Amino acid sequence: MKVTIKDIAKECGVSTAAVSLVLNNRETRISAETRQRILDTVEKYHYRPNKLAIGLLKNSTSTFGIIVPDISNIFFAELCKGCESEARKHNYTLMVTSADEFPADNMQYFNALIDHQVDGIVYAAPSNIDNQTIQSICSKITETKIPFVAVDRALDLPFAKSIVNDNVHGGYIATKHLLELNHRRIGCLTGPLCNRASTDRLKGYKMALEEFDVPYDSALILEGDFTVSSGYDSLAYMRGQGVTALFCFNDMMALGAYRAIRDYKLCLPESISLVGYDDVFISDLLDPPLTTVNQPAFEIGASAIRTLIALTQNDASADHVVFTPNLKVRSSTAPLPRPEEVL
Amino acid sequence: MKVTIKDIAKECGVSTAAVSLVLNNRETRISAETRQRILDTVEKYHYRPNKLAIGLLKNSTSTFGIIVPDISNIFFAELCKGCESEARKHNYTLMVTSADEFPADNMQYFNALIDHQVDGIVYAAPSNIDNQTIQSICSKITETKIPFVAVDRALDLPFAKSIVNDNVHGGYIATKHLLELNHRRIGCLTGPLCNRASTDRLKGYKMALEEFDVPYDSALILEGDFTVSSGYDSLAYMRGQGVTALFCFNDMMALGAYRAIRDYKLCLPESISLVGYDDVFISDLLDPPLTTVNQPAFEIGASAIRTLIALTQNDASADHVVFTPNLKVRSSTAPLPRPEEVL
Repeated sequence: MKVTIKDIAKECGVSTAAVSLVLNNRETRISAETRQRILDTVEKYHYRPNKLAIGLLKNSTSTFGIIVPDISNIFFAELCKGCESEARKHNYTLMVTSADEFPADNMQYFNALIDHQVDGIVYAAPSNIDNQTIQSICSKITETKIPFVAVDRALDLPFAKSIVNDNVHGGYIATKHLLELNHRRIGCLTGPLCNRASTDRLKGYKMALEEFDVPYDSALILEGDFTVSSGYDSLAYMRGQGVTALFCFNDMMALGAYRAIRDYKLCLPESISLVGYDDVFISDLLDPPLTTVNQPAFEIGASAIRTLIALTQNDASADHVVFTPNLKVRSSTAPLPRPEEVL
Repeated sequence: MKVTIKDIAKECGVSTAAVSLVLNNRETRISAETRQRILDTVEKYHYRPNKLAIGLLKNSTSTFGIIVPDISNIFFAELCKGCESEARKHNYTLMVTSADEFPADNMQYFNALIDHQVDGIVYAAPSNIDNQTIQSICSKITETKIPFVAVDRALDLPFAKSIVNDNVHGGYIATKHLLELNHRRIGCLTGPLCNRASTDRLKGYKMALEEFDVPYDSALILEGDFTVSSGYDSLAYMRGQGVTALFCFNDMMALGAYRAIRDYKLCLPESISLVGYDDVFISDLLDPPLTTVNQPAFEIGASAIRTLIALTQNDASADHVVFTPNLKVRSSTAPLPRPEEVL
């Protein structure tokens, strides 16, 4: 039988209000002796206040929710870990839900988190989400006024804050690195092009080409879907286009490209240079280690929680955060000999 | 302003009980016309019943909680995905919390989930958890009588069900494979030996040795901690022991061993054969692909949720589930020439 506040009060011979005051550490005229008796009894019965009841009363459950597209994508797992670590510091519990790349389910997850009265939501939209679902989600947020932070992809909502990477810069530095290594036919395997992160990275790719006076060739652009298999499949096409380097818009696709490069008995980086995006922990363990654009997933998550906490406290300083990515140059990229250097 | 059941009732000119009956699809004498008016009004205001209030009333929140040691460990991410997929089928929301390998925090997560009145808990204990924390958790479960399923590691509790792998068998088949390839000095990098999965796998290792009349040599056993770096560090010791094959008790440690093998300029599998445990998705993407013991992480998660649902329904058929692992033979293992075959 679960012990209630009434049981505690009865055993101590005090009112339930007195127990509540002591447990909430409020100033009272209760004697030190009675206070101790209440605390001892609470301890004895392992009594814990009913959080749902407190939630109804205080309008807070000390819980944040996060919706990610796929928890088995290492990038999002790291991001959740950052959220959780920061939430724990502030005595919040994090409720992680994963929408499993079914955009239509996103609305259901929003409803579930709101039904559970979470104090705020962190949202990483799936890459293939349609505009209608995004619109429904925006309406829901506007209607419920729930504190909300978008990560990885900004939403067009005046009061919703976002924590994103400067994806234009990321696309730019990756491409510039390959151009500096004398590559000119640089294949570009994007994510879904309905996704802002993808179009921004592509913008950066074009900027770098322009800077090096290399004409843009749309035949070198292939739309992927961020999965390992889409990286694998791209190689046949890219070889047909005679690319000497390939820039994949995430590490999962680069992982697939490694596999294809091996299956085609090509040498990395001698036959083809490869750049990824995300810098997930295994990038450094691949053979050869992957050159990739570093996105600080853990730090993005932690930052999202800090912004959410500021929003719940109506802290006016809560603002958008933009991380500037940097390039981790490892061994999957090598200089292409200039024509005059080839014997 | 949030719309309540009272607002809906008022606008429709009916009692709150009538709204509740219609929303819960109960048999009523309410006319079809009134019923439709109520549904239209609910639709118009996007009214959703307050789940916390319902939780207090029905003693159910349609939420399960799961505690895993580390969400960025690919094995646990897959396991969570399996839980979530099954929970979704039954209209449960899954609240994932990750204890981040701090055993002392496990108690705090238990309390948080119980405070949130989840309908049941799936628990994967961290590998380095101490007996005292396990005891506190067992007391808590006994006291609250919350439906509970242990995964990956069974707990000694009469009413708690567990979903585990037959780790003895897993250790046995991995070692037997290496013995059949003529290896005799087989290094064994275990997880923490306070962990039942580790001691069971070691038991399987010994069983296989015995079957092949190979004497057990404790110098070939090294205690790891399931991290990539512990796999990396083991190689120096194992080389000192002259092993020709290494069996790592998870794929993360095998990943570290790949790195060390490369740094030592050794050839895999020519200089040393390597076997992992878990079969996480990247095992197949490594170069060469890793031979490893397959644990169906997704299926284990789904099975845990099915058992939890049976427990919440007092279904007497809810029982322990033991998965029998199998060996995925890939290219990180090769036969050792018998002495008479060496020229």
